[in-house]
Amino acid sequence: MPATGRTIVFLSDFGYRNEWVGICHAVMNRIAPASPIVDLSHGLPPLDVRGGAVLLVDSLPYLAADAIVLAIVDPSVGRDRDVALEAADGRLVVGPDNGLLAPAASALGGVARAVEITSPEVVLTPVSPSFHARDVLAPAAAHLAAGADLATLGEALEPATLVALAIPEPTVERGKIECEVLDLNRFGNVLLNVREAQLAAAGLDGVEEIQVDATSGAGRARRVETYADVASGDWGLIVDPRGWLSVVRGNPANAAEGLGSVAPGDPIWLTAGGR
Amino acid sequence: MPATGRTIVFLSDFGYRNEWVGICHAVMNRIAPASPIVDLSHGLPPLDVRGGAVLLVDSLPYLAADAIVLAIVDPSVGRDRDVALEAADGRLVVGPDNGLLAPAASALGGVARAVEITSPEVVLTPVSPSFHARDVLAPAAAHLAAGADLATLGEALEPATLVALAIPEPTVERGKIECEVLDLNRFGNVLLNVREAQLAAAGLDGVEEIQVDATSGAGRARRVETYADVASGDWGLIVDPRGWLSVVRGNPANAAEGLGSVAPGDPIWLTAGGR
Amino acid sequence: MPATGRTIVFLSDFGYRNEWVGICHAVMNRIAPASPIVDLSHGLPPLDVRGGAVLLVDSLPYLAADAIVLAIVDPSVGRDRDVALEAADGRLVVGPDNGLLAPAASALGGVARAVEITSPEVVLTPVSPSFHARDVLAPAAAHLAAGADLATLGEALEPATLVALAIPEPTVERGKIECEVLDLNRFGNVLLNVREAQLAAAGLDGVEEIQVDATSGAGRARRVETYADVASGDWGLIVDPRGWLSVVRGNPANAAEGLGSVAPGDPIWLTAGGR
Repeated sequence: MPATGRTIVFLSDFGYRNEWVGICHAVMNRIAPASPIVDLSHGLPPLDVRGGAVLLVDSLPYLAADAIVLAIVDPSVGRDRDVALEAADGRLVVGPDNGLLAPAASALGGVARAVEITSPEVVLTPVSPSFHARDVLAPAAAHLAAGADLATLGEALEPATLVALAIPEPTVERGKIECEVLDLNRFGNVLLNVREAQLAAAGLDGVEEIQVDATSGAGRARRVETYADVASGDWGLIVDPRGWLSVVRGNPANAAEGLGSVAPGDPIWLTAGGR
Repeated sequence: MPATGRTIVFLSDFGYRNEWVGICHAVMNRIAPASPIVDLSHGLPPLDVRGGAVLLVDSLPYLAADAIVLAIVDPSVGRDRDVALEAADGRLVVGPDNGLLAPAASALGGVARAVEITSPEVVLTPVSPSFHARDVLAPAAAHLAAGADLATLGEALEPATLVALAIPEPTVERGKIECEVLDLNRFGNVLLNVREAQLAAAGLDGVEEIQVDATSGAGRARRVETYADVASGDWGLIVDPRGWLSVVRGNPANAAEGLGSVAPGDPIWLTAGGR
Repeated sequence: MPATGRTIVFLSDFGYRNEWVGICHAVMNRIAPASPIVDLSHGLPPLDVRGGAVLLVDSLPYLAADAIVLAIVDPSVGRDRDVALEAADGRLVVGPDNGLLAPAASALGGVARAVEITSPEVVLTPVSPSFHARDVLAPAAAHLAAGADLATLGEALEPATLVALAIPEPTVERGKIECEVLDLNRFGNVLLNVREAQLAAAGLDGVEEIQVDATSGAGRARRVETYADVASGDWGLIVDPRGWLSVVRGNPANAAEGLGSVAPGDPIWLTAGGR
């Protein structure tokens, strides 16, 4: 046995108010005691499959090459299949078959092999109908981390039958981008589903101030490099660390509030503005 | 030294807003650097000894057999004895002597040996009167994880002198269960101190809809298997992952709010209903 | 390779609502898979450099001697230098050069060597202008944990050029201390920038009740040893676990609210009172 086992990278919408994350850690630690567990995030908005899928695909470049990914956001727990995938590049990913894993699998070159996690050697019984994370998914991730082959977790399934999910694309026109809120952070920054290249495609990259309109709020934002470039109360547009265009405001102002308390999925329009 | 030390499973009511959890980790890591630390939960309601005791006993089946348990919910820190127990099955448990460990000790076959943690080789001095977690309990757990014998932590104490605590039992009659709220989760689900078998004992298992009454709210709930079986706004009764009967509502409704913002300890009545 | 690598102790103001802590863990785990990561706290008030500096210096006595410290509170990310320091006692510390590390460095005997983290072997490119934690600081800490020498991280810098920061000292007169709020905790306890010895210096250590005045609230507090010594609703003054004088109230009362919802930095006056 090597000194340190393969890492498990774990993300979910469980939060830290109860023991859901902790009991999954306990289960994995019992099966794979030498495997470090990295909690990528458990602060995803509850039941936000798309937000989890985006975070997972954005995070892939930063993970150890041999780390097993355990991703759980599962509004339909007990109805979704529980699956383990091997991507074309060898990466192992475990989670519910509800689209959460789909963008990551695509980014990794597609799914090479997939199984439904059903092995009685893996699943903890009785399986709680409402907590497959503890009884099915965490044990599967831990067995992979401890060296089990994917095929031992359950019955092979046809990759083409896996649920698909696409991250929404903005509508880019000359002088206008119609996009949406991908996510918020605790400082009130608003992530948009827009890449820097799309700003250029709309001809908005050379504009000094961009008009940011939400349904019930608006701001005029300068394109800046860092938070420190935005004066108190002013609006800025930065490329966030994950590569998404983000609306920010200088402390102590809050972009999400300034845009009318927007939430993930809300529409946003970027234009050169009429002034 | 093995590649990986014995795991420490840590639960408390410390939350994550300050460094209490982290400084205990630092202390344990310094004493037992090869021991993984599993944070079972630090989101227990502050000072809720009973909630902590219930979580601990519910979690035992999922822990590594040789993991040391460190459990801390201590409203009377500085007055309670700090103890380490060896249960009849060999499990080592560390915490305050205020009842928090009692249900777990019972579930593990009773206390075989117990010590009060007083050894100057173990305790960090000066001991902060308000933070025995850092100065007494965490060091004790780490020394056990690193291989120390229980007897080296301090003076033996008579197990019969340990503070007792019983999890409240519901009153089960024909057609009626008088119970109470054990816990809430972030989705607003309401855990009751009722096991599935008690629903049957009251003759309520065959009832299509069960009337759930709180002091200032009520709902009619169908017995369902999973969250996905409850339509938006509807009420359901499920057996939660820890085996407790729970009142849930379909998203985006919230059972705890629907029952009048109930809190742990509040009384709940389950009946077939008068309709 | 030893069974367990050198520990990294990580503190920040990132919170747990998003993936900032987790992605830094992933990056460090990829570079130094055998190194445990201790999360000292990520609950520092956002952008509170002074609060982070105080927590770090207070925590040093509890850390493993060879642990690498990674401290990040960086309101001016992208403008501050990213630095790694070796203290006179050998401790390695990584963080932004904005004063956050200064009190710790002083407590460790001063800075023996310092580098600006610029090595292309260390820094992840492209560096996000707003997330040097992930791309510069976490990789640097992990390379140190994996055994790299400080000099390999970047260009040496003159320790005297590092940004200084002093923890504010109270004004102590006979019968009166003018101090300020250092921090709050989730139970509403109010930490003051006052040490027990300063209470004595003001001649207030023998006073039975001390008058605690804030701008918009006040209380009369007894000097007590532990929380358990304060009756419900009463006020107490204790020496908190980090050695700071703290205003507390017996459950369910809340000292921070009783003093008019004070915040870090707010002024507080301690006197024998006029009654």
